[in-house]
Amino acid sequence: MKPKFLGLALTAALTLAAVLPTAVRVHARSDDLASWADGPAKQAIVEFVRITTDKSSPKFVQPEDRIATFDQDGTTWVSHPIYSQLLFAFDRVIALAPLHPEWKSTAPFSCVLSGDKAAMAKFTVKDLEAILMATHTGMTPEAFQAIVRNWMATAKHPRFNRPFTEMAYLPMLEVMRYLRDHGYKTYIVTGGGQDFVRAYAQQVYGIPPEQIIGSALDTQYTYNKAGQGILIKEPKILLNNDLAGKPEDIYLFIGKRPVAAFGNSPGDRQMLEYTQAGGGPRLMMLVLHDDPVREFAYGPAQGLPDTRIGTFPQSLYDEAKSRGWTVISMKNDWKRIFAFQ
Amino acid sequence: MKPKFLGLALTAALTLAAVLPTAVRVHARSDDLASWADGPAKQAIVEFVRITTDKSSPKFVQPEDRIATFDQDGTTWVSHPIYSQLLFAFDRVIALAPLHPEWKSTAPFSCVLSGDKAAMAKFTVKDLEAILMATHTGMTPEAFQAIVRNWMATAKHPRFNRPFTEMAYLPMLEVMRYLRDHGYKTYIVTGGGQDFVRAYAQQVYGIPPEQIIGSALDTQYTYNKAGQGILIKEPKILLNNDLAGKPEDIYLFIGKRPVAAFGNSPGDRQMLEYTQAGGGPRLMMLVLHDDPVREFAYGPAQGLPDTRIGTFPQSLYDEAKSRGWTVISMKNDWKRIFAFQ
Repeated sequence: MKPKFLGLALTAALTLAAVLPTAVRVHARSDDLASWADGPAKQAIVEFVRITTDKSSPKFVQPEDRIATFDQDGTTWVSHPIYSQLLFAFDRVIALAPLHPEWKSTAPFSCVLSGDKAAMAKFTVKDLEAILMATHTGMTPEAFQAIVRNWMATAKHPRFNRPFTEMAYLPMLEVMRYLRDHGYKTYIVTGGGQDFVRAYAQQVYGIPPEQIIGSALDTQYTYNKAGQGILIKEPKILLNNDLAGKPEDIYLFIGKRPVAAFGNSPGDRQMLEYTQAGGGPRLMMLVLHDDPVREFAYGPAQGLPDTRIGTFPQSLYDEAKSRGWTVISMKNDWKRIFAFQ
Repeated sequence: MKPKFLGLALTAALTLAAVLPTAVRVHARSDDLASWADGPAKQAIVEFVRITTDKSSPKFVQPEDRIATFDQDGTTWVSHPIYSQLLFAFDRVIALAPLHPEWKSTAPFSCVLSGDKAAMAKFTVKDLEAILMATHTGMTPEAFQAIVRNWMATAKHPRFNRPFTEMAYLPMLEVMRYLRDHGYKTYIVTGGGQDFVRAYAQQVYGIPPEQIIGSALDTQYTYNKAGQGILIKEPKILLNNDLAGKPEDIYLFIGKRPVAAFGNSPGDRQMLEYTQAGGGPRLMMLVLHDDPVREFAYGPAQGLPDTRIGTFPQSLYDEAKSRGWTVISMKNDWKRIFAFQ
């Protein structure tokens, strides 16, 4: 749907809402989810919000317990063909190279500097860690976030040629806002770097830093020359916020179990399981990337074995089926994917 | 001041507030701090709140940046002669002893079981860690918190013979509420156990679990017999939230620097330094225990060397002076210390 038509639809809905009785208004409210096609995914969201926020509902959830957690990469924004944070790290290697002449002849840095895409595609976790440590540490968190913001202002997605800040999925932005409008606290729970995501999350998602839980490096408290207390980012992993790390860190940060959780890959499995295990009304959703035209397609929808990080294997699809989680088809459930479309 | 008089004072203030112009009302509002004597400490709080929340003030702080952090033990409630969490751990050793016959002859457990106070007074950090690990792990966080709540319902402070939940300082409860009423988010940042404090913080301080930052053990994600996702508390320290750990964990959890911080011991030094280093309007306060009649006295006010954990040495007093932090004298600045008095 084009923005102009969307605007008209919203105006019409609001006008209707003003004259119709309450029961109908609840339904009209689902236009907050205007980018969603009518279907089981949208219905699951609307119904979940209705039963958990209507005081007369037996499944009413107290406002302080309305916690919704969202994975980021592949769930709230594009993660293919490469995580934005990796692209950032590679760009930082290039920017910092003059200070590190030895990188020219030292892998993995040399591969980045020579633009050897075949070698970069084969980077191991250890290679990536070396690059992340070299580019993400030795400075204050404030300095790091300023670098991320500068990068975000100019870097573009390789396929869409738009800033990454425009790579957020409009339907997910709508769900976040819809949940917040109904008293939910929305959290990003990402395998990506907490500091990285915090640099732009308020702008992109409307989510403040304290509601961003991510993988985190340690910091060290020290003093600047003026004797003031500062923190320095250290090359030591403190939290690996993926897989089982997600429920563990959710508990560490929030101290409560979410009642709604959104993911897209095996890294989100434990977060969804943990959410569901709380009992009572729960909403577990997985985004399936099955739209090669408007975004990307990978995972069981293609019947393809796909071993890349962040994909959606058949085993996850099977668990979703058996546990009753809702799979969101980007192709069928989303009328629009990006705000710019 | 007795509760009845307090009620009258509040009613009078509210009546006045309704008829007086705004400038006077701001002053009347300081009756929210009714347990505070008029003096430099109360004035520092009232003035700080005024300049940071009055939109016309050049030192106005945006609502999203209004972060206030409070140490717990010795700052918001009594920590002498023993931390409540240690007393809890000792009581747990006694309760769990039937399951651990070997404890009868194994220090440090045997000392607790035989009530050997001389030996307990000499416990090393390693001894205490062994006791904490044995009593705080091997169960879900939910089960642990239920045990803490049960204990809190019956355990009493050795001197005041009242539940620990009544050991909170009324003036600090007033400051927390006063700050929240002016758009501040209040956090507990404690060297004590995060899970322990979360079990009662809503009841005692009106602070929800996600605003409790404390020392934390690791958890491990696993499954119960029904195949549901659960967490188990592990005997491994993840965060040691004391000294430099306080600013490090504040950044980890909140991602922002506090603008107000309250402490009482060298463990809070770095938190106050870090708060002040943010620049702009800041409030740093230290509680000095100088009232042996109504509470306890230790630290520089007595001119005594005192090496116990949680005391207020001369070096901290000197730093407070040189950095311009406000020292709160319990004796002179607090008209009432406990709600029950």
